[in-house]
Amino acid sequence: MKFITYDFKEKESIGIVRGDKIVPIEDIATYMSLENPKNMVELIEQYSEDMLDKVENILKNKEDFKLLSLDNVKIKAPIPYPKRNVLCLGKNYVEHAREIKITRIAGTGIPEEPIYFTKMAAPAIGNEDEIKFSYEVTKQVDYEVELAVIIGKDGINIKKEDAEEHIFGYTIVNDVSARDLQGKHKQWFKGKSLDTFCPMGPYIVHKKDIPFPVELNIKCSINGELRQNSNTKNLIFDIPYIISDLSKGMTLKAGDIICTGTPSGVGLGFEPIKVLKNGDTVECSIEKIGKLVNKVKVI
Amino acid sequence: MKFITYDFKEKESIGIVRGDKIVPIEDIATYMSLENPKNMVELIEQYSEDMLDKVENILKNKEDFKLLSLDNVKIKAPIPYPKRNVLCLGKNYVEHAREIKITRIAGTGIPEEPIYFTKMAAPAIGNEDEIKFSYEVTKQVDYEVELAVIIGKDGINIKKEDAEEHIFGYTIVNDVSARDLQGKHKQWFKGKSLDTFCPMGPYIVHKKDIPFPVELNIKCSINGELRQNSNTKNLIFDIPYIISDLSKGMTLKAGDIICTGTPSGVGLGFEPIKVLKNGDTVECSIEKIGKLVNKVKVI
Repeated sequence: MKFITYDFKEKESIGIVRGDKIVPIEDIATYMSLENPKNMVELIEQYSEDMLDKVENILKNKEDFKLLSLDNVKIKAPIPYPKRNVLCLGKNYVEHAREIKITRIAGTGIPEEPIYFTKMAAPAIGNEDEIKFSYEVTKQVDYEVELAVIIGKDGINIKKEDAEEHIFGYTIVNDVSARDLQGKHKQWFKGKSLDTFCPMGPYIVHKKDIPFPVELNIKCSINGELRQNSNTKNLIFDIPYIISDLSKGMTLKAGDIICTGTPSGVGLGFEPIKVLKNGDTVECSIEKIGKLVNKVKVI
Repeated sequence: MKFITYDFKEKESIGIVRGDKIVPIEDIATYMSLENPKNMVELIEQYSEDMLDKVENILKNKEDFKLLSLDNVKIKAPIPYPKRNVLCLGKNYVEHAREIKITRIAGTGIPEEPIYFTKMAAPAIGNEDEIKFSYEVTKQVDYEVELAVIIGKDGINIKKEDAEEHIFGYTIVNDVSARDLQGKHKQWFKGKSLDTFCPMGPYIVHKKDIPFPVELNIKCSINGELRQNSNTKNLIFDIPYIISDLSKGMTLKAGDIICTGTPSGVGLGFEPIKVLKNGDTVECSIEKIGKLVNKVKVI
């Protein structure tokens, strides 16, 4: 199942995508006498896997739900307002770790331990929203396609072998980064957290639709030119390791978003570095999840 | 005015502290026909400064509100569940920047630009709650008393001269830190974000009660031994600068919490380093705000 957050007639709702149509969760909840979650995080918190199996069965067998066309809604980030900052990993693909030669941003070499930081997303922007920034704030904006894991169940000190049961699903995040601010402020938070710097989506794909371990092609193109092209099997620290390590002494919560790092090919890896310019189109894609497309607007 | 979040008969409420008593906001809201905010962030969002002036006048002139004794409630962090991560500054007092000699954690010297990172707080713990950790997760837990600024009004690209109008008030945060994890993961987030590592409180003091610029004595004692002792006038980057710089390209929101950095005297500054042990009592205090006391429990 694919879960979407969308605006229809200026009201934000959540739904399930079937082909090019959406079934509103509200209708399913009413039909099945389930709680009606107000947003995606409430859905993740309220609906157990058993309940989701039942929802899937109903959708397969009942044909007369009201369907909205995807063309008639505004697709939003699946979780526009995360309850806490988006969790991110730095330098989690070998070739990407090697391409970063500017030591003031990230040090050198392949990390021996995961590098965790966070990203403000308030709101995270959706497919076809604009990445906006002013040259007065940053002159070095870069793209980073990432597989994002959505946590489905609270947990602390989670064992690697139990990691999958704490996952709800997966989406794409473009970890847009102001390289000059990352260097200037040493810790990366500010350079990762400008308004609009967290494109997310287009949907959350439920984990049942993606075999574990997760091995998906992951790509990013700028104006049609392929820049990043790898597979999530190349993560240095894989998803079970990340969930286990990150949850040591720190509770992960349903609705938390973990961006697993970006492969090589970012603008910072070029000599001289390539930065995003006004009018650029950034297309992030991950197999089985979809495409997340955003234009750049310099304001 | 001092604003408190508390549990009474297992229900979380917010109120205003008068001496050793609490006036529940619910009663004030009912009496004044105001919205009844469910929590502190809603109060900050819903109550304008004019409304707060009226509340203060009512409290001065009307004597018959139901009063709760502070002794009969459980004091919680004023904002137990911040909407986004707590915003923090590293190395923002000169003597503290000098005492940190372990370059793998923070580099050396006095920063030329603010160092921003974030801290998970879910929940932030209150006065007299326990700071809990396991030696399996960290062996180097340290204290950091900090003046925390509570944002009162959304803003982006805020000018330094307008900073004060975006402030709601002030509280104390102990930026508890796992030094070994800060070094291990390079970026500081994980070492700052273990469960219980964000003691906050005891109250939020409204900005009207604290002259601007903010010059308050700030102290931290471990088991009665004074370790940190400075004044917030010694910040390298002062509050107007922080609010202006942090809001460049990034919207600050009502309810956001900005920890302004810690003075010298942390455990990491000693040779060998001093770490928190089971049973230790950490007392953070800031003039005009109060005392935030937490015991350490190794689990």
